Amino acid sequence: MKIKSVKFEKTYYRYFEPFTISLGTHEDQENIEVRLELEDGTVGLGEASTLFVISGETVEIMMQAEKTVQEMIVGEDVESYGKLFSRLQQLRATPAIKAAVEFAIIDAFCKRIGIRPYEFFGGAKDHIETDLTVGIMDLEKTLKKVKKIYEDGFRIIKIKVGKNFKEDVERVVESKKIAPEAVFIVDANQGFTPKEAIEFANTLHSERVEVVVYEQPVNRYNIEGLKLVRFNCPYPVAADESIFTKYDALRLIKEEAVDFINIKLMKSGVSDALAIVHLAQSAGVQLMIGCMGESSLGINQSIHFAAGTGAFAYHDLDAHLSLDEKTFRGDFRQEGPHIYL
Amino acid sequence: MKIKSVKFEKTYYRYFEPFTISLGTHEDQENIEVRLELEDGTVGLGEASTLFVISGETVEIMMQAEKTVQEMIVGEDVESYGKLFSRLQQLRATPAIKAAVEFAIIDAFCKRIGIRPYEFFGGAKDHIETDLTVGIMDLEKTLKKVKKIYEDGFRIIKIKVGKNFKEDVERVVESKKIAPEAVFIVDANQGFTPKEAIEFANTLHSERVEVVVYEQPVNRYNIEGLKLVRFNCPYPVAADESIFTKYDALRLIKEEAVDFINIKLMKSGVSDALAIVHLAQSAGVQLMIGCMGESSLGINQSIHFAAGTGAFAYHDLDAHLSLDEKTFRGDFRQEGPHIYL
Repeated sequence: MKIKSVKFEKTYYRYFEPFTISLGTHEDQENIEVRLELEDGTVGLGEASTLFVISGETVEIMMQAEKTVQEMIVGEDVESYGKLFSRLQQLRATPAIKAAVEFAIIDAFCKRIGIRPYEFFGGAKDHIETDLTVGIMDLEKTLKKVKKIYEDGFRIIKIKVGKNFKEDVERVVESKKIAPEAVFIVDANQGFTPKEAIEFANTLHSERVEVVVYEQPVNRYNIEGLKLVRFNCPYPVAADESIFTKYDALRLIKEEAVDFINIKLMKSGVSDALAIVHLAQSAGVQLMIGCMGESSLGINQSIHFAAGTGAFAYHDLDAHLSLDEKTFRGDFRQEGPHIYL
Repeated sequence: MKIKSVKFEKTYYRYFEPFTISLGTHEDQENIEVRLELEDGTVGLGEASTLFVISGETVEIMMQAEKTVQEMIVGEDVESYGKLFSRLQQLRATPAIKAAVEFAIIDAFCKRIGIRPYEFFGGAKDHIETDLTVGIMDLEKTLKKVKKIYEDGFRIIKIKVGKNFKEDVERVVESKKIAPEAVFIVDANQGFTPKEAIEFANTLHSERVEVVVYEQPVNRYNIEGLKLVRFNCPYPVAADESIFTKYDALRLIKEEAVDFINIKLMKSGVSDALAIVHLAQSAGVQLMIGCMGESSLGINQSIHFAAGTGAFAYHDLDAHLSLDEKTFRGDFRQEGPHIYL
């Protein structure tokens, strides 16, 4: 069935509260919805969402890829999605658009053949558990937020750090005390030097905090620094900003630089994300899946990908919970941390 | 002196004849002119030019960076260009825009202080010699073009290959015969496998063709492949598509993957290009400078950069000679291959 049209539309969301990471503060989020229609009227949807400080994409830049994408895929058979994905690899400057368009193609294809996207991806699981993320804020607010999250049933709590060593240690250690059964993902978003990163981890470890993933402790380009931290730190170290493409993943694996890779569809597209799953599984590198600022529509993509492949030890798919979204558009059901397909 | 405004404008040029490389054929070129004005009326100009197949940027995408750039630099002192360059590093998705804006800043700054850009860059030379490039075309047309170029005085001739092994060998070998005093740059634009690339070089070598740079023989992501070719080939091997940022350059150097790096301002911006010069010189890696589809305005940027730093063994700054441009806008004088500042 041929693809009749593909259209981009800007969307705007406010965060319920400003969200701060070591790279900056965000109060709102502009995304792009991709609507793809087949000649028989079947519609596939996708969402692109990114942060300028991470990828250099803005929503205005991404909108301009619409014409290019139309030229690449309109008039083509949706069944030849593999061929279309190859073409879309050229969207080097706009990986989030690549992700949204690839997912819209998969969505339309799945509707045509009568399966759901997570089945397309392998149907490994129909339930996943997500963490919830606490941005950088003062100790009091951090603890209030952790208490709320814990009461809501979340047992994997992600805490942003990397801005103030001493305060960050205190925030994590005190959080641990009020969420005794929780495990923690700690994400520095490149905020530490390698030696600071090692010291930070050892300090948390001496306080018996169970950190299950230590994300991007150092600068994205400092692969040797990541490796240094990995080999001198009691916690599993993950690359996030350091890895966008499958080529980045292969390099990290070859250099033995990380224990974990954080896959985000918005960095890699669906096609490279699949390749990274295979690379990581072959190498014994563990996987988590993360998000940018997706609404329920975009988080839905990652949920189906994660559940279908069953490849992820941890799921950090919580952006939609922070956005003031009028209409829930996910093809999943959520109860606290539990997501059911 | 504060920056009062910065504006982008699209420009359009036709190539005198279609230009084919292993990645595709181009008949026209859309660029962006950046016009920066200081509060005292001083104007700085820059040009962004790129190829979608190389960088994933389109002119539409690049236009959308205008607002972002305005937010970054309008109202700031042009004398603090180092600070501004740091901010512009965030333009990860649009390196050609980074280049154009950085040059416009330098241009305005130089006018203010009464020097020319090549002096800003070190004033090492006031004359450089460029090659001229022959795209992929049949043997007869190739020879006709080489003959013309040779008669025009060019003694460095660049030939695009990587599409048809046998025809490419013949095109280079026969070109050598009608341009006996010329040396050749051979550019495969990723068109070969490593083994093909080695075989190709050995074949040319057995025919006594003097190839002074063998550009990007294999896929951009195949750094080990580049290294394999480098260590099994009689000619100096250069990375082009494999290197955009200073981080890419450092990796290539650390992996001993290349003899040469092809710097293009459009891939790196002025700031990273300067860093790459220092990295390469420290490592004993040689440098050439190339271009995308710049008009005389954009080529002017690379000429000033190249002459000022004096860092380049070869200059491939010829795009403006292939474009049907109404008004020459370079701050240089050209006689055949010779460019004078």
